[in-house]
Amino acid sequence: MDFSVDTDDNLYSTLAAGVVPRPIAWVSSTDGDVDNLAPFSFFNVVGIRPPIVAFAPVDSRDGLKDTARNVERTEEFVVNVVTEDLVEAMNETSGTFPEDVSEFDAVGIDRGDSVAVAPPRVADAKVAFECVLHDFEDIGASTLVLGRVVHVHLDDGVLREGDKLDVNELDAVGRLAGGLYCRTGDRFEIERPP
Amino acid sequence: MDFSVDTDDNLYSTLAAGVVPRPIAWVSSTDGDVDNLAPFSFFNVVGIRPPIVAFAPVDSRDGLKDTARNVERTEEFVVNVVTEDLVEAMNETSGTFPEDVSEFDAVGIDRGDSVAVAPPRVADAKVAFECVLHDFEDIGASTLVLGRVVHVHLDDGVLREGDKLDVNELDAVGRLAGGLYCRTGDRFEIERPP
Repeated sequence: MDFSVDTDDNLYSTLAAGVVPRPIAWVSSTDGDVDNLAPFSFFNVVGIRPPIVAFAPVDSRDGLKDTARNVERTEEFVVNVVTEDLVEAMNETSGTFPEDVSEFDAVGIDRGDSVAVAPPRVADAKVAFECVLHDFEDIGASTLVLGRVVHVHLDDGVLREGDKLDVNELDAVGRLAGGLYCRTGDRFEIERPP
Repeated sequence: MDFSVDTDDNLYSTLAAGVVPRPIAWVSSTDGDVDNLAPFSFFNVVGIRPPIVAFAPVDSRDGLKDTARNVERTEEFVVNVVTEDLVEAMNETSGTFPEDVSEFDAVGIDRGDSVAVAPPRVADAKVAFECVLHDFEDIGASTLVLGRVVHVHLDDGVLREGDKLDVNELDAVGRLAGGLYCRTGDRFEIERPP
């Protein structure tokens, strides 16, 4: 089957099922009073020097989501990596909460102190990237948020040789379509050609 | 462990091991004479209406990679989705080939006709997104390429209900760090909260 796509078409279900598996950014932000925490799987690295990550919240019916609004105002956020032990809590934070309720408190997630930015990190996240806003771009019904990584937290349990992040120890979870996720334990290695 | 990051630090290994699993864009492009084909895992959806995907080639030692140069000039490319049956061929196209050699020919990959853009697609890809350039941004030592999806190809074998892409049939492959990949067959479903 093949079909044409117009600028105003919504291709959500096809893109969400076809661009897989997606890494999950569990993003913490704050407006100064309320700490927000929400997952986004339109997320990846986009630069390495300078180190830049990007995530793309789809606008809610009322406009920008809390996370996008906080990031636009404060220019700071933390990307917490989602591993198997955190996936249920992550999912709970994807629900709809009143604007004055923190997902940290509503779901019962421990805050960890950040070093370089105001928003707390998820204390139990094995990897967390503290970010400052690099760019904030309107992409129609979505926003593209680019953040420069300024501080990194790595749990000692996912390190090898003392200071290197070992993906084999991470048990990261990927997002598929709908409510489907995948584990990353079914790994294989291919030698890269010269 | 935690550490600060400066603007000119290269965080490649930490980002590549921490932002996982990554979807893989196997991007075909052309300069009119030579059809290029190369995989990029700094890739995701960034918009759904209009439908926009993005990938971020890291510059080679000589500047822009062939793919980035072709896309900047022709403003067209195709994202082919990488499934288990294609992963070995995909890996072979990540090698270094002379500028005048097509990876389609060197590796022995069948071209499929595209409908709306000039670059061929990978004939055996179960999902392919034909794209026109939406934006081309310099991110330090990387480039962020945003493309608007204008035409979609879906293999009949990955459809359910006749016309919907079924992620359960796709056997997509995710990129981890180094030469490590993961299969997506170890799936689980979580009901999304209200």
